[in-house]
Amino acid sequence: MNLDDQAFLFQLGSRIREIREKKGLTQAELAEKCQLHRTFIGSVERGERNLSILNLRIIARNLRVSLSNLF
Amino acid sequence: MNLDDQAFLFQLGSRIREIREKKGLTQAELAEKCQLHRTFIGSVERGERNLSILNLRIIARNLRVSLSNLF
Repeated sequence: MNLDDQAFLFQLGSRIREIREKKGLTQAELAEKCQLHRTFIGSVERGERNLSILNLRIIARNLRVSLSNLF
Repeated sequence: MNLDDQAFLFQLGSRIREIREKKGLTQAELAEKCQLHRTFIGSVERGERNLSILNLRIIARNLRVSLSNLF
């Protein structure tokens, strides 16, 4: 993973965090809705995770935004 | 993976194929640009692959479209 990839994942994670907080959800609450682990959501938000498109779609759906809104 | 996930991946793959063909690229040519294997591109286009967001980004970049354009 190069610096550009890292910057992209960091930006994506920050966007997810921003939307989650706007919706008044904790990481644990979002994780439960998504049926994913809280630490997984945490690592995504920190840009540490090259997640799959299906997991990203689950997160978008539970944040009630479209995938396009995350980029 | 449920039917809804499969339908989503199939739609995503079809969209990638549509754009690739519009650009006049073969799977092998797109694969080479992306530094991915031709069979990987083939499986993505058939909706058989829950690919990572970084690989999807590489494909979008080499098709010269934004990620949002793929959904």
